[in-house]
Amino acid sequence: MDPSDLRKCVDFLNEVEALKTVYRQNMAVDGSRQENSAEHSWHIALMAILLSDCADAKGLDLFRVVKMLLIHDLVEIDTGDTFLYDIEANKDKDERESATARRIFGLLPEGSGSQLMKLWREFEARSTPEAQFAAALDGLQPLMNHLASKGAGIKKHDLRTSQVLDSKRHIEEASAQLWELAQNVIHRSEAKGLYRP
Amino acid sequence: MDPSDLRKCVDFLNEVEALKTVYRQNMAVDGSRQENSAEHSWHIALMAILLSDCADAKGLDLFRVVKMLLIHDLVEIDTGDTFLYDIEANKDKDERESATARRIFGLLPEGSGSQLMKLWREFEARSTPEAQFAAALDGLQPLMNHLASKGAGIKKHDLRTSQVLDSKRHIEEASAQLWELAQNVIHRSEAKGLYRP
Repeated sequence: MDPSDLRKCVDFLNEVEALKTVYRQNMAVDGSRQENSAEHSWHIALMAILLSDCADAKGLDLFRVVKMLLIHDLVEIDTGDTFLYDIEANKDKDERESATARRIFGLLPEGSGSQLMKLWREFEARSTPEAQFAAALDGLQPLMNHLASKGAGIKKHDLRTSQVLDSKRHIEEASAQLWELAQNVIHRSEAKGLYRP
Repeated sequence: MDPSDLRKCVDFLNEVEALKTVYRQNMAVDGSRQENSAEHSWHIALMAILLSDCADAKGLDLFRVVKMLLIHDLVEIDTGDTFLYDIEANKDKDERESATARRIFGLLPEGSGSQLMKLWREFEARSTPEAQFAAALDGLQPLMNHLASKGAGIKKHDLRTSQVLDSKRHIEEASAQLWELAQNVIHRSEAKGLYRP
């Protein structure tokens, strides 16, 4: 690799250390602290590898899904995680995250920077089967986390089941089986009092 | 996917939440807490994608490298992270981690369980160019973290530079360029007083 390109990659890799301190509403399963976006990204990349057979689309480029999931939250470095159910904060989310994407991916050598930017836009637009599957996993993992962590981070938000179902309905675009799983997890969480009927 | 296989995958994916609470000696870059093995795995998977051109071997199966890195620390779930420079704790590390590997990968459907087990063994044995490159990144990231976090987690261990160099020399098997980078990072850390000359 060209030494100046390597220098840029190292700067980028040092910069993205910051994703480990972007905290989400969900909790680590032992309840000790909030989950961060770096470990969340790790978790869903592993989900992609194990659950690829659940995707309705055939011939998925699974490595592209994994790459998308590894980078999808880097845009939170400047702005923090925007809580899915916070309507106000979501109004200018795209704008804020696009600015961060330009800054963060702009640290990289031009080739890899523009590749990752393209991948991130694909994820955001859910414009391909890969992006739809990636988004499905990104939507499913917090549901599983709510149930596994007994709602430690979510109960206080007093969400309605219908609200959760609506926000996760896109999972069905990618996988009938994962959408069935998601609904099952949501209803079990409701039964445990994590969401309001 | 067969519903009982999906059930097993979900159990596994809930179980591996625990990797987010396996803490390492390194610190999050803001010094607020120790780094955990899940976010460390995320970081080096991203490194693999960006630094693949640095590998000496040509035609590397990069997705296999990324998969290896995503799973390589799951064996710490039962035993915790074993500090590289703790000679005593490293004596029975292989035995302890093999037992965890059997338990953790044993939660999965047979096909994917044995695939991940094989991948983990390949990583541990550094028996292929993919495993050597994965191990190089796993060795390099903590060095970069020490420097970026100003030695927050490492200074107290009073490591000698020669000790650090020796433990990281395997990076050279995979990449002359990354070994040069590693040495440069180590010497800059020494100059900042993170290691003893």
